[in-house]
Amino acid sequence: MIDRAHRDAFLHILGDKGLVEDEGDVAAYETGARYDRGKAALVLRPRTTQEVSAVVAYCVRNGLALVPQSGNTGLVSGSTPDGSGTEIVLSLDRVTQVFELDLDNRSLKAGAGLRLSEVNRRLEEHGLFFPIDLGADPCLGGMVATNTGGSRFLRYGDVRRNTLGLTVVLGDENGTVLELSADLRKNNTGVDWKQLFIGTSGAFGIVTECVLNLEKTPRQAATALLVPKSAAHVMPLLRAMEDRLGVYLSAFEGMSGNAVAAALDHVPSLRNPFQRGVVPPYVILAEISRTWAPREGEQGLDAVLENVLAEIWESEEAPLADAFVGPAHETWALRHALSEGVKHSGRLIAFDLSFRRGQIMAFCERMKTEMPSLFPEVTICDFGHIGDGGVHLNLVVPRDSAAASDADYERRLRDWVFRITVEDFGGSFSAEHAIGRKNQAYYDLYTNPEIKRLAQGLKAITSPGRLGTARFG
Amino acid sequence: MIDRAHRDAFLHILGDKGLVEDEGDVAAYETGARYDRGKAALVLRPRTTQEVSAVVAYCVRNGLALVPQSGNTGLVSGSTPDGSGTEIVLSLDRVTQVFELDLDNRSLKAGAGLRLSEVNRRLEEHGLFFPIDLGADPCLGGMVATNTGGSRFLRYGDVRRNTLGLTVVLGDENGTVLELSADLRKNNTGVDWKQLFIGTSGAFGIVTECVLNLEKTPRQAATALLVPKSAAHVMPLLRAMEDRLGVYLSAFEGMSGNAVAAALDHVPSLRNPFQRGVVPPYVILAEISRTWAPREGEQGLDAVLENVLAEIWESEEAPLADAFVGPAHETWALRHALSEGVKHSGRLIAFDLSFRRGQIMAFCERMKTEMPSLFPEVTICDFGHIGDGGVHLNLVVPRDSAAASDADYERRLRDWVFRITVEDFGGSFSAEHAIGRKNQAYYDLYTNPEIKRLAQGLKAITSPGRLGTARFG
Repeated sequence: MIDRAHRDAFLHILGDKGLVEDEGDVAAYETGARYDRGKAALVLRPRTTQEVSAVVAYCVRNGLALVPQSGNTGLVSGSTPDGSGTEIVLSLDRVTQVFELDLDNRSLKAGAGLRLSEVNRRLEEHGLFFPIDLGADPCLGGMVATNTGGSRFLRYGDVRRNTLGLTVVLGDENGTVLELSADLRKNNTGVDWKQLFIGTSGAFGIVTECVLNLEKTPRQAATALLVPKSAAHVMPLLRAMEDRLGVYLSAFEGMSGNAVAAALDHVPSLRNPFQRGVVPPYVILAEISRTWAPREGEQGLDAVLENVLAEIWESEEAPLADAFVGPAHETWALRHALSEGVKHSGRLIAFDLSFRRGQIMAFCERMKTEMPSLFPEVTICDFGHIGDGGVHLNLVVPRDSAAASDADYERRLRDWVFRITVEDFGGSFSAEHAIGRKNQAYYDLYTNPEIKRLAQGLKAITSPGRLGTARFG
Repeated sequence: MIDRAHRDAFLHILGDKGLVEDEGDVAAYETGARYDRGKAALVLRPRTTQEVSAVVAYCVRNGLALVPQSGNTGLVSGSTPDGSGTEIVLSLDRVTQVFELDLDNRSLKAGAGLRLSEVNRRLEEHGLFFPIDLGADPCLGGMVATNTGGSRFLRYGDVRRNTLGLTVVLGDENGTVLELSADLRKNNTGVDWKQLFIGTSGAFGIVTECVLNLEKTPRQAATALLVPKSAAHVMPLLRAMEDRLGVYLSAFEGMSGNAVAAALDHVPSLRNPFQRGVVPPYVILAEISRTWAPREGEQGLDAVLENVLAEIWESEEAPLADAFVGPAHETWALRHALSEGVKHSGRLIAFDLSFRRGQIMAFCERMKTEMPSLFPEVTICDFGHIGDGGVHLNLVVPRDSAAASDADYERRLRDWVFRITVEDFGGSFSAEHAIGRKNQAYYDLYTNPEIKRLAQGLKAITSPGRLGTARFG
């Protein structure tokens, strides 16, 4: 537990609503979305940038460790305390007051504690949205700290691309507040400092507000499930779609047959869309969309998609074995059920990898070829964002196998997958989940010493205090 | 002139083709695209990253100052030496060997010394291009160092958005080479270090290679010149276009009547497209484009644009006074002639500003209102990128006026414009030209001390040696 003098100081800064002390309430802040449960020294809930600054200054002066947390939906133990009981959780879930919409600028200044769903709900009447499409419902602060991508990266990019400005509290003795780059779309008057706080898990400063680019909400969409002739035909299919659809193409998601089957097995509301119910070995969800309502004289999007698929079908090296154009809500329901389905089918060991687009299928084939002899208990249920190179490699072991409860098994499996990803394919071991305690060892292993030295230097000039769970030095 | 021992060392590293010594040849490297002529101690032309590294290491160890230069088309004296004769120009114009195209990944790894036009020429056969549309023809290294935007920012973003990876030589005693982030579209395994070298004029390291995102080349376009009812109707017009066209809209460029008139006066090949030849006070160039060839059953883009304009025309608060749909090459010829026209009409004092989109026209109105009493010699010939907030404020004074040759007049004018831009409108004094000797004083004036302290720290950990003309500390 925290020293009484410290507790009194926080009470003085934040008032009694700023401290969470009820054991039941505290648990939610100590428990991650997927992994371990930690033990917090204290949970603090400031309401403003100024309160965050005062808390941080106090902690740095007193050598106390802070773990910033917003939506706590991350998957790498980046926002929960360790088991020592010495780390203070700094929750941003009350930093929700700021919501300044600039319709001319298509931008929004918003507090880090606002949920993505809440932001988009409030934008709806203006026909705008923050274009990061995720299964989870994180808060903005955490989205910046992990630089999430999601299912429409191909069209809209990641959080980095859609962040115009940040307000950041540095982990120094003054809790220095930086207002970075504000609401301009173009500004090249020095270092773009906000970039350092995007995707770095709060290690260099705590994001309290952000200015976001907004996009017009699509008002038409057409989707299809595409079955490539083989793994080798996936990239030619993507290229054929990009050639013919350009900016219309808003998603190109890959789903392994195992992942689809798991979803169909465990989510009874899903319709099996395949011929005679036979799930193919690999399926692509392709989506095209437009931001305007159907207009007279204009071909409907279903027809556009059907024509394009027919063209590809009839092309010389036709990469398609089968295609099912279906309603968007049904197609996406299947895509969004994959995580849930995979989780139900055994103990899940999940990876968030990325590759050059042309390498994705080769990597997946390599897994399929080598896994059975090395890790015979594993079922590979991968899915991912082919359009941007992302692969959620989900490995499932039966709950009743010895492997399911063997920590060393998981470590060996992770070591092996990451080695092939990074060393053999030049891929990333964290595409859009950033760094937390869960993958820290791989940062340590795969980061070149010169980059570590730079990160140490950057840490010293920005936030010498103890911030976050990631260690970049 | 350079010490003989230093000269011999460079000769040893680069061979005799690596040194430019003929006075006539040297002049081109000493002279900027728009402003002053400097004096180089020496001009070096390495061919590879390794040679750049060796030169940099030697210079840092010996306290020699280097000015990196690639295409030398910048407008803020960022790539030419000062008049002291002590700065060495490090030209990247021979770093052109690398050109590795990855069609599946839609990416290109290329040397910093390749010209934009050359890159796009070589990509043409693949239906791809590097989507930064500029009047000038810079090399890739300088584009990264200034983070150029251009006329299609609205659709494709700036160089930052389209840079996947960089190879950088740090200005330290080892000429440390960093390979940053390679060719992945998603990678959140620590600080995204490449961001520090984008838009920072080579102060923190020299870019020798870059991995770029490529886009499909548009195969259809339709353009129109739009006359808004008044300055206050420009933003409603942009919003009406974005509402109805979404991602089709690929340019929304503003042109003052003065700039258009100057172009029509000085470029005889241009056709005057306006009714009875009367140039309106403000004109918008709007472009819509598609990346695929016209397809059966699909409405042509001219028809799409005409229908949308008719819709806007008939809408309740119709912001349009007039509209001329015309062939893209003709419309863009006018847009691209603005710089040339303005330059011919007197002595040009040019600004590269940006604002929140909704503030652009208010700023321009403020200039028009206050300029005549304070600087009566000035004709305002602004144009810019309304879609992204950029304004090229071009001020022209008659060549035969006293003001035209008065350095103090220019300084007072700049001070006044920048003060209003930054202090009253929260704008940027360098939207897409970055920092060089020409605007260094304004960085010094308008940058907050905390940001300067961070930049000093960053300089110390990356490139303690003397690199570039910009001083961020």
